[in-house]
Amino acid sequence: MPALLNINDKDFDAKLARLTHRQSENLSDISGDVANIIADVRRDGDKALYYFTQKFDGFTLNDDNLRVSQSEIDDALNKVSDDQLSALKMAANRIAAYHERQRPDDALWVDDDGVTLGWRWGAVDAVGIYVPGGKASYPSSVLMNAIPAKVAGVPRIAMVVPTPNNVMNPLVLAAAHISGVSEIFRIGGAHAVAALAYGTKNITAVDKIVGPGNAFVAEAKRQIFGRVGIDTIAGPSEILVVSDDKNNPSWIAADLLSQSEHDPDAQSIFITDNGDYANHVCRAIEEQLNGHSRADIARTAWENNGSVIIVNKLDEAPQIINKIAPEHLELAVDNPESLMENIRHAGAIFMGRHSPEAIGDYIAGPNHVLPTSGVARFASGLSTLDFMKRTSIIGCNAESLANIGPAADILAQGEGLESHGRSISIRLEQLNESPK
Amino acid sequence: MPALLNINDKDFDAKLARLTHRQSENLSDISGDVANIIADVRRDGDKALYYFTQKFDGFTLNDDNLRVSQSEIDDALNKVSDDQLSALKMAANRIAAYHERQRPDDALWVDDDGVTLGWRWGAVDAVGIYVPGGKASYPSSVLMNAIPAKVAGVPRIAMVVPTPNNVMNPLVLAAAHISGVSEIFRIGGAHAVAALAYGTKNITAVDKIVGPGNAFVAEAKRQIFGRVGIDTIAGPSEILVVSDDKNNPSWIAADLLSQSEHDPDAQSIFITDNGDYANHVCRAIEEQLNGHSRADIARTAWENNGSVIIVNKLDEAPQIINKIAPEHLELAVDNPESLMENIRHAGAIFMGRHSPEAIGDYIAGPNHVLPTSGVARFASGLSTLDFMKRTSIIGCNAESLANIGPAADILAQGEGLESHGRSISIRLEQLNESPK
Repeated sequence: MPALLNINDKDFDAKLARLTHRQSENLSDISGDVANIIADVRRDGDKALYYFTQKFDGFTLNDDNLRVSQSEIDDALNKVSDDQLSALKMAANRIAAYHERQRPDDALWVDDDGVTLGWRWGAVDAVGIYVPGGKASYPSSVLMNAIPAKVAGVPRIAMVVPTPNNVMNPLVLAAAHISGVSEIFRIGGAHAVAALAYGTKNITAVDKIVGPGNAFVAEAKRQIFGRVGIDTIAGPSEILVVSDDKNNPSWIAADLLSQSEHDPDAQSIFITDNGDYANHVCRAIEEQLNGHSRADIARTAWENNGSVIIVNKLDEAPQIINKIAPEHLELAVDNPESLMENIRHAGAIFMGRHSPEAIGDYIAGPNHVLPTSGVARFASGLSTLDFMKRTSIIGCNAESLANIGPAADILAQGEGLESHGRSISIRLEQLNESPK
Repeated sequence: MPALLNINDKDFDAKLARLTHRQSENLSDISGDVANIIADVRRDGDKALYYFTQKFDGFTLNDDNLRVSQSEIDDALNKVSDDQLSALKMAANRIAAYHERQRPDDALWVDDDGVTLGWRWGAVDAVGIYVPGGKASYPSSVLMNAIPAKVAGVPRIAMVVPTPNNVMNPLVLAAAHISGVSEIFRIGGAHAVAALAYGTKNITAVDKIVGPGNAFVAEAKRQIFGRVGIDTIAGPSEILVVSDDKNNPSWIAADLLSQSEHDPDAQSIFITDNGDYANHVCRAIEEQLNGHSRADIARTAWENNGSVIIVNKLDEAPQIINKIAPEHLELAVDNPESLMENIRHAGAIFMGRHSPEAIGDYIAGPNHVLPTSGVARFASGLSTLDFMKRTSIIGCNAESLANIGPAADILAQGEGLESHGRSISIRLEQLNESPK
């Protein structure tokens, strides 16, 4: 049974706090194993990759088949149906269009003191994209990680994907092709992350690694962070649906299950102002779980982590939402804008009755890599900015240095940093000696 | 002796590679100690803070003096000279003005398929600022970390600063006051980071922690990352100065020493096209080291990590700079813009002969928290954006869902995610049953 909460419960806040699973500290008991794998890759290079691939993925890898060939990509494109290919292309175009709007502007101005100030954005040189293998090998994930990098102007995008028993998912290869991925390597796990971070003979190191993976991949990303950049470490997927009693209960049931079916740890929370309606939705969930292709996963997630929260009025929802800071938030009501005004923390908001979260996973355009586990309190979804970096620009001439330099000299002296002060005062002295 | 490289050396690339110290993996041998300290704070709360303060800072802390009082802040303001106070205020105003320009815009549009798309930025609710104690307790650091948070609209800024033997730096308190810091706690070390991340009875948890610290602080930030946000872990400071032979050698010497004096691990690199001029600069460095208040630190850093690189023409500098991705880059030449065009990776660029790096540390306006150790390849300096987060907005109506939904359904089926597909198809079915 999912947890049932009512905002009028005496212990509501305590119950709500138990619902919200914040990420805890990062130390994990696999960190030693992962450190050893990384050390092996640094020492043995490609040979280590071949060893671990034999061990974990059960096939023989070598210099000739490490990289997926163009003919394999062509084969994959032939295996994908026309419907699938055009759906992928439509998704790619919409994702590119949204992320184009995120490209930041450069700036350069001269301020009142005559100082030239500004910044310039540039793309990262090389990005690595981790794509999980097997059943969790999602083509949509390839689009969502690669396209923003492409839009940012990243010249080289290297993808790694484990292929257990050397079986590839043609949709994943098609998505990589459509997204403009430059290189695809048939490896996964912590060793693939290490290869991207440190490089081997056959794989040139990248500057940033993004994409979801299992616990070993997440720990490897944590360990190589600093050497290269990484995206946020993702937790289980979450959805919070706010609905009045005017939606078809089956719609809301499908929305809640669309997270539950991801992962036994996924969390679906439902807020409504009508207890009878909540019962209808719960019954619709039971109906949809009957014969569901992922019934076990979805039922486990819904019963262990699901929750129904009854409020007196939907106006009470935002205060609850802000405590949870959900990854996905659906506002399935007539006037979602008025609720949104009071919502401070959410990864993505789906507005109105016809915006199921799944459109955001695939086709809407915004990124589906979003902050989980309450991380929306301080972080954003993946964006074009994650593949760019900003250089500050500062320019003084003799006059503007004379305007702002003396104050800097005072502060440098206050910090006991002699040469900091001298680098300014020595220029000001010369200026004073030879006035223009 | 600093390393002397000439771009015409046969082994130049190998020598250059040895110069660039990239951050390596994060596992450190203090991670167990830090994990224990964090666990103690989570279990014992304020009592653990008082215990560690007695142990490390040598004075007795309790519920009454944990937080710095308003009268202590007033006292500090009285101790600071008028010159220092107005220098701090000038710096604060310039930093605020620069960071105001970084405030991002919200966006909302309806695309050709009728889908409402956009994003909304919001501030983090509460930020913790770590300020090192003792000699490295820099007021400029307080300004650079607190003001962008204030500009972002963060309502609560909590600062922690260790005060060995209960001695405070009045300039640090003054800077905190000027920056709009809400609360100041007299603690430091890994336990202070743990208190900010998890909260105690007397310290409410924050959502993001920024600011430099020693190895224990850095490791604690790594470990609580995910629970709360953190800034990039900073390495030793670096400067790369490009100069032709027309600058007063003493100017360039002071600029190079302004990094060397920070830390024995700091790195100063000098690129010029004239070997004789390089000798003049090195001689000026020796002269300025004579009687320098931080001679030991500066000399150690310059001799162990310093480097002079001679090129044939300054046009060859950008390719070298891009390999190093320096934190600070000075282009002390007549036409710095033409060099800048080819520079892809640098934290901040100081343009021309009258832009010593120290003006960026204090007064220019851009943030002095910048990516070190080559991290400028993939990361930016601290900015207003680091204290804000973006929520994606997605809104379909019945018509636009009919336009983009079918493709999403196809992709969901391709990924075997039944409820994802159903959440879309079930809405489209109802639409087909009752056409408008």
